[in-house]
Amino acid sequence: MDALSFHKKYKGKVKIMPKIKVSQKNLHIIYTPGIAQVTKRIAENPLNSFIYTSRCNNVAIITDGSRTIGVGNTVAEASMPVMEGKAILFKMLGDVDAYPICLGTKSAKEIVRTVEILQPSFGAFNIEDIESPKCFKIMEELDKKKILAFHDDQQGTAIVVLAGILNAFKAMKKNLKKSKICLAGAGAAGYGVFKILKEFGIKNLMVFDNNGLIYKNRKGDNKYLREVGNFSNKENKRGGLKEAIEGTDLFIGLTGKGGLLKTEHISLMNKNPIIFALSNPVPEIFPKEIEKAAKNYLYATGRSDFPNQINNALVFPGVFRAMLDKRKKVSLSLEVKIAKAIAGLIKNPSKKRILPDVFDKRLLKTITKCF
Amino acid sequence: MDALSFHKKYKGKVKIMPKIKVSQKNLHIIYTPGIAQVTKRIAENPLNSFIYTSRCNNVAIITDGSRTIGVGNTVAEASMPVMEGKAILFKMLGDVDAYPICLGTKSAKEIVRTVEILQPSFGAFNIEDIESPKCFKIMEELDKKKILAFHDDQQGTAIVVLAGILNAFKAMKKNLKKSKICLAGAGAAGYGVFKILKEFGIKNLMVFDNNGLIYKNRKGDNKYLREVGNFSNKENKRGGLKEAIEGTDLFIGLTGKGGLLKTEHISLMNKNPIIFALSNPVPEIFPKEIEKAAKNYLYATGRSDFPNQINNALVFPGVFRAMLDKRKKVSLSLEVKIAKAIAGLIKNPSKKRILPDVFDKRLLKTITKCF
Repeated sequence: MDALSFHKKYKGKVKIMPKIKVSQKNLHIIYTPGIAQVTKRIAENPLNSFIYTSRCNNVAIITDGSRTIGVGNTVAEASMPVMEGKAILFKMLGDVDAYPICLGTKSAKEIVRTVEILQPSFGAFNIEDIESPKCFKIMEELDKKKILAFHDDQQGTAIVVLAGILNAFKAMKKNLKKSKICLAGAGAAGYGVFKILKEFGIKNLMVFDNNGLIYKNRKGDNKYLREVGNFSNKENKRGGLKEAIEGTDLFIGLTGKGGLLKTEHISLMNKNPIIFALSNPVPEIFPKEIEKAAKNYLYATGRSDFPNQINNALVFPGVFRAMLDKRKKVSLSLEVKIAKAIAGLIKNPSKKRILPDVFDKRLLKTITKCF
Repeated sequence: MDALSFHKKYKGKVKIMPKIKVSQKNLHIIYTPGIAQVTKRIAENPLNSFIYTSRCNNVAIITDGSRTIGVGNTVAEASMPVMEGKAILFKMLGDVDAYPICLGTKSAKEIVRTVEILQPSFGAFNIEDIESPKCFKIMEELDKKKILAFHDDQQGTAIVVLAGILNAFKAMKKNLKKSKICLAGAGAAGYGVFKILKEFGIKNLMVFDNNGLIYKNRKGDNKYLREVGNFSNKENKRGGLKEAIEGTDLFIGLTGKGGLLKTEHISLMNKNPIIFALSNPVPEIFPKEIEKAAKNYLYATGRSDFPNQINNALVFPGVFRAMLDKRKKVSLSLEVKIAKAIAGLIKNPSKKRILPDVFDKRLLKTITKCF
């Protein structure tokens, strides 16, 4: 069955179910009059809602449809199938009850206020598929308001990418902290990866976006890109992809541009290169083009039909499980800690295996322990 | 088990579940890359979200906690157990996926805007346990914006009360349209009952609230109470409960004041009185006090331990089933039609049985047919 017929047949993918069997016998406990005992207890202290209601396990997946898979910036309705798919992964992999909440507004201010207003029913929020830099602004505001939120496109991607990188360098017997890295893309994912690499201690980083190589005080850059320019490209080079990639050990592609990278670019990299071509479904480069320039290399993508899939689903179920259970936000240092812990699950990383499987049962406990 | 331990044990009452079995095999249809076919189809026309996502079956139960069972006006968190209980009834009785959404704002304007923003994920909205007259204002605004919403406290109660009244008058062999009615309470439920009685064709109505008998241009009345004053109390009487109830055939109590009605009040009613003492858990009067003044009477309450329970759960599951399936709002004339249809399910109403059971399987189809 194709995706359209499938979604039409089932009318979406998630439903609400009672946690308990209901009958006339227990209705007086579940509903009136018994319920008044519970409402009183929560009115005394709103935090009791984490004890007596499903709030303790509820996450709202919040989007405005501005970066919808397959379409880009569109109506929020169109992002509903993605949010429902994500809700299923939340349940399967983290036993989290995730509600797909697509918001009919593109205003950062309104999105923040809506999340704030939705708090009484939810323990945490997953910010999803919102375009940058709006998504960064939203996360900053939520953080100021002490609202427990995680930006999976940014933070989840950063964690799984660093976990993969750690083992890729082990597998290739390269020293990560002494290496030079080319990061292509400075959207939600790219910026998240930039921040985690900086936090981890990477010094030598070149970042490339739609406007070319990023450098200090580049004209027209917003404050997030300025932050990238201030830290990366220490030699203050100008140029494009060529200037960004030459002399690097690792290429990380988060550009959304399939086929961007050519054999000639690989030739400019250091020996035994590591290529994370993460754009989906078409990666920045395929192995056959790498092979023309490098014999010994490590290749990772976002796809399941190649080895080394870099998949956020390794991260977000466990992260939200822990956020809900420990009521703690994910700081940059915690991101690094989680990445290291996930990488640690692979005892002997190889070119064909740098990360655990999404269904690896150790992930939940491993991530929770980091909090 | 008591209600507190029960809610603590299960951590609330509803959860999110996948509609389908998920495996590595169908993940490409449910999520990326297949999902892009579906997002594109909805981006072309947002109404396609009713075909391909769970929106077609999703209702948000919206409250601000301002009229929470057992507490009154309190934090929205405290209303979560009630909304979860309601969600279970939605599922059991109407196969509707109802999401408990408690809003952390008391502002009517913000509540309306939040509902508007939440539309892409939901097919309809149930406005619940919000104090009056705020709830009326919210419903008016939602209606202006063509948002499909139903105010169960007002409209659901009105429908089930009229259904009960129709059969009560049959059982007591009284003529409803020629009768005089005392309605005590002009909050959400009272106002809803007022409107449906007027729509049905009742002419002789006395309405009583916290400030006494309502009359034309009573000082301090908001526009909803003025509407009541303009239509009811044709003789333009002043006074309290005594003046409201004397010479009436039917008393409808929606005051929230248990024990308000005394034997002396019943003595003032016409012969063979009908008493709907609907305040919960303590009704306005118990049978033993009625019996001192009337031998032949019909008694109904909101309680399950007396005959003739007047319960919204007879109405809202079917109403939302039909609203979702037919994408049609519930007008006043439709309210009357539904009430008549529900009443019609009881072939020979008696003093002990004027309404069907909540679990009566005919309800869904009967209500849906009215739309």
